[in-house]
Amino acid sequence: MMKRVLTHIPGLDEILHGGIPERNVVLVSGGPGTGKTILSQQFLWNGLQHDEAGIYVALEEHPVQIRQNMLQFGWDVKPYEERGTFALVDAFTAGIGKAREYEKYIVADLNDVRELTDVLSQAIRDISASRVVVDSVTSLYINKPALARGIILQLKRVLAGLGCTTLFVSQISVGERGFGGPGVEHGVDGIVRLDLDEIQGELKRSLIVWKMRGTSHSMKRHPFDITEKGIVVRAKEVLGL
Amino acid sequence: MMKRVLTHIPGLDEILHGGIPERNVVLVSGGPGTGKTILSQQFLWNGLQHDEAGIYVALEEHPVQIRQNMLQFGWDVKPYEERGTFALVDAFTAGIGKAREYEKYIVADLNDVRELTDVLSQAIRDISASRVVVDSVTSLYINKPALARGIILQLKRVLAGLGCTTLFVSQISVGERGFGGPGVEHGVDGIVRLDLDEIQGELKRSLIVWKMRGTSHSMKRHPFDITEKGIVVRAKEVLGL
Amino acid sequence: MMKRVLTHIPGLDEILHGGIPERNVVLVSGGPGTGKTILSQQFLWNGLQHDEAGIYVALEEHPVQIRQNMLQFGWDVKPYEERGTFALVDAFTAGIGKAREYEKYIVADLNDVRELTDVLSQAIRDISASRVVVDSVTSLYINKPALARGIILQLKRVLAGLGCTTLFVSQISVGERGFGGPGVEHGVDGIVRLDLDEIQGELKRSLIVWKMRGTSHSMKRHPFDITEKGIVVRAKEVLGL
Amino acid sequence: MMKRVLTHIPGLDEILHGGIPERNVVLVSGGPGTGKTILSQQFLWNGLQHDEAGIYVALEEHPVQIRQNMLQFGWDVKPYEERGTFALVDAFTAGIGKAREYEKYIVADLNDVRELTDVLSQAIRDISASRVVVDSVTSLYINKPALARGIILQLKRVLAGLGCTTLFVSQISVGERGFGGPGVEHGVDGIVRLDLDEIQGELKRSLIVWKMRGTSHSMKRHPFDITEKGIVVRAKEVLGL
Amino acid sequence: MMKRVLTHIPGLDEILHGGIPERNVVLVSGGPGTGKTILSQQFLWNGLQHDEAGIYVALEEHPVQIRQNMLQFGWDVKPYEERGTFALVDAFTAGIGKAREYEKYIVADLNDVRELTDVLSQAIRDISASRVVVDSVTSLYINKPALARGIILQLKRVLAGLGCTTLFVSQISVGERGFGGPGVEHGVDGIVRLDLDEIQGELKRSLIVWKMRGTSHSMKRHPFDITEKGIVVRAKEVLGL
Amino acid sequence: MMKRVLTHIPGLDEILHGGIPERNVVLVSGGPGTGKTILSQQFLWNGLQHDEAGIYVALEEHPVQIRQNMLQFGWDVKPYEERGTFALVDAFTAGIGKAREYEKYIVADLNDVRELTDVLSQAIRDISASRVVVDSVTSLYINKPALARGIILQLKRVLAGLGCTTLFVSQISVGERGFGGPGVEHGVDGIVRLDLDEIQGELKRSLIVWKMRGTSHSMKRHPFDITEKGIVVRAKEVLGL
Repeated sequence: MMKRVLTHIPGLDEILHGGIPERNVVLVSGGPGTGKTILSQQFLWNGLQHDEAGIYVALEEHPVQIRQNMLQFGWDVKPYEERGTFALVDAFTAGIGKAREYEKYIVADLNDVRELTDVLSQAIRDISASRVVVDSVTSLYINKPALARGIILQLKRVLAGLGCTTLFVSQISVGERGFGGPGVEHGVDGIVRLDLDEIQGELKRSLIVWKMRGTSHSMKRHPFDITEKGIVVRAKEVLGL
Repeated sequence: MMKRVLTHIPGLDEILHGGIPERNVVLVSGGPGTGKTILSQQFLWNGLQHDEAGIYVALEEHPVQIRQNMLQFGWDVKPYEERGTFALVDAFTAGIGKAREYEKYIVADLNDVRELTDVLSQAIRDISASRVVVDSVTSLYINKPALARGIILQLKRVLAGLGCTTLFVSQISVGERGFGGPGVEHGVDGIVRLDLDEIQGELKRSLIVWKMRGTSHSMKRHPFDITEKGIVVRAKEVLGL
Repeated sequence: MMKRVLTHIPGLDEILHGGIPERNVVLVSGGPGTGKTILSQQFLWNGLQHDEAGIYVALEEHPVQIRQNMLQFGWDVKPYEERGTFALVDAFTAGIGKAREYEKYIVADLNDVRELTDVLSQAIRDISASRVVVDSVTSLYINKPALARGIILQLKRVLAGLGCTTLFVSQISVGERGFGGPGVEHGVDGIVRLDLDEIQGELKRSLIVWKMRGTSHSMKRHPFDITEKGIVVRAKEVLGL
Repeated sequence: MMKRVLTHIPGLDEILHGGIPERNVVLVSGGPGTGKTILSQQFLWNGLQHDEAGIYVALEEHPVQIRQNMLQFGWDVKPYEERGTFALVDAFTAGIGKAREYEKYIVADLNDVRELTDVLSQAIRDISASRVVVDSVTSLYINKPALARGIILQLKRVLAGLGCTTLFVSQISVGERGFGGPGVEHGVDGIVRLDLDEIQGELKRSLIVWKMRGTSHSMKRHPFDITEKGIVVRAKEVLGL
Repeated sequence: MMKRVLTHIPGLDEILHGGIPERNVVLVSGGPGTGKTILSQQFLWNGLQHDEAGIYVALEEHPVQIRQNMLQFGWDVKPYEERGTFALVDAFTAGIGKAREYEKYIVADLNDVRELTDVLSQAIRDISASRVVVDSVTSLYINKPALARGIILQLKRVLAGLGCTTLFVSQISVGERGFGGPGVEHGVDGIVRLDLDEIQGELKRSLIVWKMRGTSHSMKRHPFDITEKGIVVRAKEVLGL
Repeated sequence: MMKRVLTHIPGLDEILHGGIPERNVVLVSGGPGTGKTILSQQFLWNGLQHDEAGIYVALEEHPVQIRQNMLQFGWDVKPYEERGTFALVDAFTAGIGKAREYEKYIVADLNDVRELTDVLSQAIRDISASRVVVDSVTSLYINKPALARGIILQLKRVLAGLGCTTLFVSQISVGERGFGGPGVEHGVDGIVRLDLDEIQGELKRSLIVWKMRGTSHSMKRHPFDITEKGIVVRAKEVLGL
């Protein structure tokens, strides 16, 4: 039987029939404001609470800001960074400004995915990470969609090779039906889609597991809430759009 | 707890569950005639009434015209400019004509976002501004969409770094579903969308807060009016399109 | 209070809550056969009847043909041209043929918007024009949409600077939802859209004021007719498409 | 009052409230199989029966084939060619093959619209033509849409200058809403659209006059039939799609 | 009266009010799996049974495979090839492999439509063919749509000149509304569209004659079946999608 | 009568009225998560159980991962590889890493389809394979769609020539109507489409046989399940979307 990595996000493991199969690379796909980043950070934080080291690759936001944002949900990663069970890979500042002093893992040139995988591999080995989040993979190919599939496969090869279970945040536009392009969707082991839909003048949050290699899973769309403590999935409810 | 910046726009702070979280960069997105500029100017004017200095970056309209337009709502910024609590950054005239004599902050070359951020930073420091409006960010990348994300991030870094709470006006086409392109939508901390919809031969105004980092907010679409004193949001009502 | 320019088109001033605010640049946008040109010529003719000098910039049709077309509605501009209160800027013939002899204001090279604004400025000063029509602005950027916004702003600057109230005719395709492209729609002070819709096998004419800086206006879609004397708007009626 | 050119096509003049205003250039626009060519040839043939000379500019079909096709409806143009009241401008064969011997008016290079207008002008003068058909104008710019407007205006100038009333056949795709592109639609004096729609498994023919400068016209969609004697419009009936 | 070529396909001649007018070039247009090739081969086979020689131009499939496919419906063309009343033009193998030995008519370079028309003309003269199928014309311009119209006209000129009645197979995508592009649709004498539609979970076959020069025809959509003996059209039934 | 290859996938042979006609090349087309890979691997595994040798061409996933994935359904291909009745062509690793040691059939350069067909031909001859899966053909032309048709035809020629019955996995986007592009859809002998549709908040799996040369087949959409033992098609049920 396949080993599972529990997200410990209320309702989500139930929907996944017991968590994410180990080593899977899962696309967390959604439009702006759908909660992709919160879900991903919660996945890492919950790992830390269960002695599973994790890495957050920051491509969209300043590392300082990310730590502050997590703090708002009560997720203080600083002690874990000191203890060596959490690491933040700074692929945002390019080492400019004070980041050079404070950040341990810096990717200088984002046009070279090689450097990213090198720095990430080092970080994974350093802290024996079993969970990784890349937020977002979209940044890596936003202006060069023809390269998307290659980049996804390159990252996946490294991460699966090192035994990590990974979330790839994929940014899509409002109203877009797919999950981030054909090369990306077919290249990953799982897809979790987060949605924010306006229904009769009201915004509704929901998620659906579109595919997950190595396990059966709920085939339904479930509503979820973003609370002060993070995401809570209503696994017993179904939202029919 | 997170500090808030009150818009003092009737109904809007209620919808935002207490105002905009400090330092957030918020996209004010809408089609032509939806009231984006009015909302943004009202945000600045209301700040002035509460001793919060503000800056308006003018990319779409002549500075003289902007002051006149504001005057129509009774918002006379001249005294505040003299007093040093309001500043207008002229990124429209390129310093041609009489603007060179009258305007203090002029951006000569709009193709160099660097110059814009330099002039803007100087203005913010000069008057200790806590509120900024950029009207519109769309002008900065209208003919080079591939650069949109980079420009948004560059501006955001400077503005958040200087402690400002900012509105980015984003112009979209009639009938367009998004908020100004994927790179822009995912790069900001909040999105407020203004709509003007024809329903049964009648135009209806409404707004919806699509996302706002650091706070919960109304998840509903609210009608609003443009009155002689500016925008009034009907926070108790919902418009189901 | 803002000064108004009356269109004297039956029903239209009522819809505009008292006419077009002075110096506004208004987009008159519509598909083929919707009546854009007639509305614009009627606006000029009505001005002439009230001692307001006007200029028609002809980009789509031969000046001779334009005078003939106007004549069909009983609008004989010849006497006004002689008297010096009406002028036609010929941006159509490039001065080829007999136009060189008969036309006073000729724009030779349409690829140079500079020349157009120079000739137009001269004409405005010569006859102290307060009303201007550019039919159509679309011609100026039909094959170079990236330049649309810049051209609109350049024209607007000159016209508002000279104190004119202006209509820009914008040609759109049948079924197109916008008003002529994002750069154009957001750059003008007002938008009046003319529509011709097939409903149950019958063509229906209607117009709607989408935005108008400096005034409130009807928020409804009104049917209108093209009569032998020009356009008549049924300001009391609403057409729900 | 404006002079009219009668089409003598049953039902069509009634719909046009008395025929096509003289010198108008009218777009006859429709998808494949809608009857554009038949309507245009019938317009010319009916002119011949009323002593009005006509010219057919053939861009889509071999001149020999065109004469044969017309013959199927009983329209034998040969005697009229001999008598000098009908002419066919061959803009199809480029003078290759036997066409060089048999055709009087040949356009050798279709990429040079100048040659076309020269040959056409000559033919018009030779036979004192008052009716012209260009079938199709689409051929002239199918692979260079940016030139469409210029070509339409150039042709229109010549034809109106010579006093002709003209039909321009415009080919559009099935399901396309417009009439052949914005530059074309706005450049002509009138638009007649022919449609062939599948309704409940049955094809229905109809036409609608979308615009016609210089006259009022039916604002309704009328069914029509293609009979052995050509097109018959049911002017009393309306088809609501 | 016009001469007709009978398809002898059950139901189809009835729909065509007596067969295809002689020398017509007819587009047989449809998505994958709709039966275009079967209909075309059946047209040729039925001709052979009535002493009308025919030619199949093979652009999509190996000649050997084509003969085998026809055999499955009981259509054994070998004896007719030997007898000189059927010919296969191999525009697939480019003469590579054993084709060079076995095939009599080979087109080596498909980028030169000239060679195709030369080989085809020769074959038509050799066997005095009156029926021709080109399967598919789409192959000739799939990567160069701007050339489609020219290629269609060039082929049509040769085929009509030699007195053949021809089917052009046109491949379209599932869900595409047209028949293969504007240049193609307007260039042919007739269009027969084959459809395969999923209705309530079931695939339904139907065809509709969209246009046919020189004859009236059924204006209805008819269901058809692919049986062991080829296509059978249900001319008495109508399918309303 | 035509020979058949049985898939032995529960329900599928029934739908195909007796299996896939021998030598057919069948497109297995579907969006992410629809089960294309599982169906293809099951087809090969079932062949092995009936002494039919098979080859899997791996373009999307590491060979090691593929063997593991198959193992999850109880399909252990190792013994068959040793016995010489199953082979995996590694067109994924390019021979980098340990693959060079462990994999027998490696394609180094995917831009040269020639090398792929050479290696594949060798493998087919070595183990006398009668079943082949290429997962996916999409990878071969994802960034060069103009080449798709040529690549499909080249592969098909080789595979049919060697007597194999083949499945081509075709990856399409969510919401895409076609099967992988016109050049691909028309080039294959059969199309089986797998779908995953959200209906009222629930994901539903179904498949439909769109075309299959050489046999009649069910014309209905059938639901199917992915069980622990692979795909089970409910051949008696119909899903009307």
